[in-house]
Amino acid sequence: MPFCLQQVRLIDLQVGVSSLIRPPNALCDLVCGRSFRLCKTRYRFDIVPTPTRPFELGIYSFVELTPDPVTGVMVSPAERLADLIEEIELADQVGLDVFAVGEHHRPEFVSSAPAVILAAAAARTETIRLSSAVTVLSSDDPVRVFQNFATLDLLSRGRAEIMAGRGSFIESFPLFGYDLQDYDELFSEKLELLLKLRTSEHVTWSGRHRPALEDAGVYPRPLQEPLPVWIAVGGTPQSVVRAGTLGLPLALAIIGGEPERFAPLVELYREAGRRAGHDPAQLTIGINSHGYLADDAERAVEESFPSVQAVMNKIGRERGWPPLTRRQYEASRSLRGHLAVGNPDEIVEKILFQHEIFRHQRYLLQLSVGTLPHDKVMRAIELLGREVAPRVRAEIERRNSTPKRTPSPQ
Amino acid sequence: MPFCLQQVRLIDLQVGVSSLIRPPNALCDLVCGRSFRLCKTRYRFDIVPTPTRPFELGIYSFVELTPDPVTGVMVSPAERLADLIEEIELADQVGLDVFAVGEHHRPEFVSSAPAVILAAAAARTETIRLSSAVTVLSSDDPVRVFQNFATLDLLSRGRAEIMAGRGSFIESFPLFGYDLQDYDELFSEKLELLLKLRTSEHVTWSGRHRPALEDAGVYPRPLQEPLPVWIAVGGTPQSVVRAGTLGLPLALAIIGGEPERFAPLVELYREAGRRAGHDPAQLTIGINSHGYLADDAERAVEESFPSVQAVMNKIGRERGWPPLTRRQYEASRSLRGHLAVGNPDEIVEKILFQHEIFRHQRYLLQLSVGTLPHDKVMRAIELLGREVAPRVRAEIERRNSTPKRTPSPQ
Repeated sequence: MPFCLQQVRLIDLQVGVSSLIRPPNALCDLVCGRSFRLCKTRYRFDIVPTPTRPFELGIYSFVELTPDPVTGVMVSPAERLADLIEEIELADQVGLDVFAVGEHHRPEFVSSAPAVILAAAAARTETIRLSSAVTVLSSDDPVRVFQNFATLDLLSRGRAEIMAGRGSFIESFPLFGYDLQDYDELFSEKLELLLKLRTSEHVTWSGRHRPALEDAGVYPRPLQEPLPVWIAVGGTPQSVVRAGTLGLPLALAIIGGEPERFAPLVELYREAGRRAGHDPAQLTIGINSHGYLADDAERAVEESFPSVQAVMNKIGRERGWPPLTRRQYEASRSLRGHLAVGNPDEIVEKILFQHEIFRHQRYLLQLSVGTLPHDKVMRAIELLGREVAPRVRAEIERRNSTPKRTPSPQ
Repeated sequence: MPFCLQQVRLIDLQVGVSSLIRPPNALCDLVCGRSFRLCKTRYRFDIVPTPTRPFELGIYSFVELTPDPVTGVMVSPAERLADLIEEIELADQVGLDVFAVGEHHRPEFVSSAPAVILAAAAARTETIRLSSAVTVLSSDDPVRVFQNFATLDLLSRGRAEIMAGRGSFIESFPLFGYDLQDYDELFSEKLELLLKLRTSEHVTWSGRHRPALEDAGVYPRPLQEPLPVWIAVGGTPQSVVRAGTLGLPLALAIIGGEPERFAPLVELYREAGRRAGHDPAQLTIGINSHGYLADDAERAVEESFPSVQAVMNKIGRERGWPPLTRRQYEASRSLRGHLAVGNPDEIVEKILFQHEIFRHQRYLLQLSVGTLPHDKVMRAIELLGREVAPRVRAEIERRNSTPKRTPSPQ
C-alpha cells in the first residue's frame, strides 16, 4: 500500500483514552500491518472503515453456474467459487469500492450462503466493501443475519454491509416455511428487528413471524456502528418510501426499461426521507444494473449476449417474458438503455448520463448474468476498476464541487 | 508444496470419462495450482479430500474473548479473530489435521457464526480440515447449516465438517425461540433432517420443530459426498448410542475426571454400531480435551493456569462448581488426568496412554480456555504440530500395523 487510506481508532489501554487518527504513510505499516501487535499491551488499534468516496463503483454477483451456451461446458461449483474469489481479489486490487454477493436457492446458483462466501473474500482482500445483494430477509432470521454479518465485519475490519430485500426469486419461502401471503409483512417485521439489533446489544422485541426476544444479548458486535443496512428495491413505490422514511440507503435495481423512468421513484425516496426529517446527505442511492465490458464494444456484445440470452430466456419461460433478441440487447445498451454493455468509454458515458438524472452515490454492475469464462470476467473487472472508475469519480467529484453548473434536483 | 497430497477427480469433458488420480509431483502444480485453468475447456479437475491419516491431531476453539487475568488487558473482537485466523494458518502449515470452531452466543465469545469464521480460514489454508465444534443443531435450522457447510466445503475444496451437538451452553435456546423441554427431541429430529440433506438433493420431510419440506432442492451440493457429520457428546449414554446406531463418528468431550472412566462409553458406542450393522472401521472416535503446550512443563502450567482458572470459576459460579485450585490443575495434568498441559514429551505420552484405552482416531485440543497471548498460542500450535503430532502418528501407525502386540479391544 503506497499510502494509508484507513482511519484508525487508537485506544491507549493504560490511560484509557481513545482517538481517531489517520496514520501518516511512514507509520501505516506499523499501524495497519501486522507489526502493530508489537505494542499491544499498551495500545489497541481498530481500523475504521474507509470514508465514503465521492462515488462508489462495484460489482455484484449471484454466483450463477450455467453451461457455456456454445460449448455446453460447465465448471464445477468448487471451481466457480474459486473463480469468484479471484474476481473479488482483482476487484479489490484495481480499486473498486464494493463487491456484493446475492442469495439464491436454486441449482443454477452457488450462493445460498452469501456471508460464508464473503468471509473467504474478506481473508483475501484489503479495502473493498463486502455486501450481500440481496439478503432475502423475509425468509431469514434477523438474529442469524446480524450475527453472520457482524462476524464478517470483524473479519474484514469494518467492510461488511447488508443489502436487505423482499426477494425477487421466491424459492426461499417454501424452503424456510414462509407464506407468500405475508410477503410484505415478513419483510417489514424482520427489518424492524434487524435495525434494533444494530443499535442495541440487548433487545426486547416481539412480532408475528419470529419468536420474541426478552432482553436478549446478540453477539458478536460489529466493528462498524451501526453495521450498514441498505434496502434493495425492484421498483415498488411502497418499498422506496419505506427506505426513505427509515433514512436507510436505497439500492435500486434497474434491469429493464429506460432508466430515466425510475427518476420519480428516486424523487419519492428523497421526499419520504425529507418528510421523516432525515438529513438529505444521509439519503444515499445506489443503482444495480446488468452489464459487461470489453476492450471494444463489438466484443463486449459478442462475448456477453449468448449467456445473458440463455439465462434470461430460461427465467423468462418461468415468468412469461418474451424471448430476448440480439436486437433488443443492442438497443438496451444504447445511452438511454439499462444495459451497461460496451467499451470503457461507453460505460463512463452511461454512468455519467444516469448521474445527471439520479445524482446517485453508487453504481454496481452484475457482470455475469450467465457464467462467462473466468478470464473474460477478470478483464472486465480490470477495465471497470482501472479505466472506468477513475474517470467517473473525477467527473462526479467535479460536478459535486461546482453546484451552480450542475444544480441538485433537491 | 514439495509433493502432492491431494487426490484429484479428473473429468475429460470431451470423452465424458471421470477418474481418480494422484498427480505425480511434477504435475502437481499443473493440477492443484492455478495453471490447470489453461486446459479447462477439455478437462475439469475436482480436488478430492486427503484420505484420513492413521491418526489425526488438531485444535478446537470457542474464540473466547476474556481479559488477561493479570493485566486486565483485552484485545478487541476484530483482533481476536485476526489472531485466530493466523493460528489456523499456522496449524495448517505445521501439518495439523483439523481446526474446529465452536458456537457460543455470549459476550465472552466471538463465535456465534462458525461457518463464516471457517470460510475466512479456508481462504488462507491448504490441507487442514475445518470443522464446527460444535454446531448447536437443536436451536438451528438444518437447511441453513447444510447450506453454510456445503458452501464451506466448496470454498475449502472438500475440507469441511459439521460436528453436531445438543449444546452444553444453552443460551441459544431462548435466542432462537426453542424450549429446553424439547432438548433431546429437537436434536434427534434436526439430525434426521440434516442427514437426509446430505444424501439427497431433493428432500421430503416433516417434523414438529421445523416447517415441512416437499421435494425441496437444497443447494449448493458439497464436494464431499457425503459431507462429514460428527456427533459430539459430553458423556450421555443415550447420545453415544445414537451416534453408534447411526454409524456416525463420535466426538467425545473429556474435560473433567479421569479419561479411563469414559472407556465404557466408547465400548457402548462400538457395541451400538455393531448391533446396527455398521462396519467397525467406520465407527470413528475423536477425543476433545483442554490443554496447553510450552517448551517446558513448568512454563506450560504458569502460562495457562491463570486464564483457565478465571474462566472455569466464572462458568462454575453459574453452574455451582467449586473454585479451581492450582493443585487440582496440577493433578489433572498427570498421566491419568484429563488435562493435556505440559511439554511435548508429556503430551505425546498422554495421548498414547489414552490411545491404549480408547483406540481412537482423532485427538483435538482446546488450547485457550480463556484468551491467552497470541504469541504463546502460536508457540503451542507449533509444538503440537512439529513435535507431538509426528511422534504420536508414528507410534499409532506402528501399533495399528502390529495387531498382535497391541490387540484391538474389539
